[in-house]
Amino acid sequence: MNEAVKPGAEFFNTKIADLHGFIARVLEAVGLSSTDADRVGKLMAEADARGADGHGVFRLPQYVQRIESGGMNPRPEIRVVREQAATALVDGDNAMGHLVMSRAAEIAIEKARSAGVAWVGACNSNHAGPASLYARMPLAHDMVGIYIAVGSANHLPPWGGTEMLLSTNPISIAVPGSRWPELVLDMATTNAAYGKVKIKAQLNEAMPEGWMIDREGKPLTDPKRANEGFLLPIGGPKGYGLALMFGLLAGTLNGAAFGREVVDFNKDFSTLTNTGHAIVAVNIASFADVREFKEKVDRVWQEMKSSPKLPGFDEIRLPGERSARIYQDRMANGVPLSRELYSSLDALADRLGVPRL
Amino acid sequence: MNEAVKPGAEFFNTKIADLHGFIARVLEAVGLSSTDADRVGKLMAEADARGADGHGVFRLPQYVQRIESGGMNPRPEIRVVREQAATALVDGDNAMGHLVMSRAAEIAIEKARSAGVAWVGACNSNHAGPASLYARMPLAHDMVGIYIAVGSANHLPPWGGTEMLLSTNPISIAVPGSRWPELVLDMATTNAAYGKVKIKAQLNEAMPEGWMIDREGKPLTDPKRANEGFLLPIGGPKGYGLALMFGLLAGTLNGAAFGREVVDFNKDFSTLTNTGHAIVAVNIASFADVREFKEKVDRVWQEMKSSPKLPGFDEIRLPGERSARIYQDRMANGVPLSRELYSSLDALADRLGVPRL
Repeated sequence: MNEAVKPGAEFFNTKIADLHGFIARVLEAVGLSSTDADRVGKLMAEADARGADGHGVFRLPQYVQRIESGGMNPRPEIRVVREQAATALVDGDNAMGHLVMSRAAEIAIEKARSAGVAWVGACNSNHAGPASLYARMPLAHDMVGIYIAVGSANHLPPWGGTEMLLSTNPISIAVPGSRWPELVLDMATTNAAYGKVKIKAQLNEAMPEGWMIDREGKPLTDPKRANEGFLLPIGGPKGYGLALMFGLLAGTLNGAAFGREVVDFNKDFSTLTNTGHAIVAVNIASFADVREFKEKVDRVWQEMKSSPKLPGFDEIRLPGERSARIYQDRMANGVPLSRELYSSLDALADRLGVPRL
Repeated sequence: MNEAVKPGAEFFNTKIADLHGFIARVLEAVGLSSTDADRVGKLMAEADARGADGHGVFRLPQYVQRIESGGMNPRPEIRVVREQAATALVDGDNAMGHLVMSRAAEIAIEKARSAGVAWVGACNSNHAGPASLYARMPLAHDMVGIYIAVGSANHLPPWGGTEMLLSTNPISIAVPGSRWPELVLDMATTNAAYGKVKIKAQLNEAMPEGWMIDREGKPLTDPKRANEGFLLPIGGPKGYGLALMFGLLAGTLNGAAFGREVVDFNKDFSTLTNTGHAIVAVNIASFADVREFKEKVDRVWQEMKSSPKLPGFDEIRLPGERSARIYQDRMANGVPLSRELYSSLDALADRLGVPRL
């Protein structure tokens, strides 16, 4: 524990750099190369810094368990198996998803530089943390980023069904501006992501109605009973349609798992998940003057932000605005980790013989 | 009226070929070349055949009014103004959107053949009918199609706001299979598209709660009062986020209108709309064996379709399945047009001196 511990609080603030270092040494202890361990540590700590609490260090014990159970390859050879001017298919060799998708993003950026747009798919990958980590990567190159994935466990049936054949298959779209934070949408195709359900369970809080229903179609609000029901898609059949199509594009098209093939990575730690994702980079200069475009994005931000509000609303938020605020705060003050999470990370460190957080 | 008129009914069945021909002769009468008029007629009739009742011949009087008011160019020179290996920006020269986006789709298909994927944006375009018309175009070339657009009138505020700065900005994603109908998602980012509201008004039917709210945040169910309220996005802030990001990608990136710049094409018939759209074609062969991929899509279809149902559901539907059924029926039996619509089309024909439908 670092100096930022709040006495008496349920949460302990941890510096991003400490988190990054801790994750890296844990992953190196279970067999990753120091370069790969450092890369994943940086991305997972960034997930926490940006407020994706269900997708950062919270997942570390589970990742370690999967590596130790032989379900994830600590020494992968990630390679491009198909390629055209504006596309690539990356075989992740069962690596941690963070390694596969940061590589895929690099390839997409490189190809979009000359072709204008690039679409890079991946198979034989794993859970990669929050979608926005990868959609954000093209931003620094004056590109729009789009990321879709097959989620790592099925949590919803097709609309009108009861068999969980679909995951919350997320989409993230990132668009750069100049004066304001980047616009970054990062959403599950369900009213709530399953990571949020897990967080509610850990905090012992009830879920709002609309997140889940049980097998009779009744609202389910106890997160500890989450395995007795399923998540609800946004807009009913529309969210189901999005989850299905994103699944075909991120999974089936890449030769990755979809539908009944999806392994529940919360329950099964040894079976190959063959997770699929895709990232698209769109070079802004292929369509517009980059500076003018960013100024227009600023105007859109300002226009939305300053427009009149409905009774009961304090402010109008832009996609990614909340996350940008959290990022600023957490980079300065650290990430609040719950006592329970801290204990599990301490136990993990002790078992692996690496220094605690 | 054709022979398929049902005596005493409120609806009159019209053959697709008759609809195609009628639309073409009306558009030729207001100045389109016979080639362009025929192309639009075919696409608009296809919209009706596929069940997009708010986007087919129903829109003809409005299109004619816009052309006659100088708000749409009947003799456009559509041209590519920026281009890279996998991208193009098409300037529509204020043509009917159908002409701009069918051209854009052709370019996308051609480029995706060699580059693997292509993204073609358009500006200075207009309302183009249902999104799926264009997303479907790559299917015949063993490609996935994706289409997004800025809607032609703003009908929703940012989440928590009251100023209608956003349209229902739709997305369509089309994926080919082999044994079953293609999977074609075509959805507004609102719980209901505005075209559906217009249809309800024409049918004198109330809207279900959830489609619209008024400026106090109360449910609005009378479609004739639609201009007193706004549409609700799917999943609340998520649908708002999608509408915003699709608007930036289909509008702002292409130098097309977005936000306050959007002209309400239901009320203003002469101002340039500068409508923006984008189409993406993804060449399946760049990622997978085409035949194997289609067989896997068939398996996904079968898996969803045959899975157990919630109480109260007769069947599980796949995206595009309802439309495929309607298409089969309407190609055989014609499109049912309401008495009111028929009368307005007769009046239009008489005024322009072309044979009635």
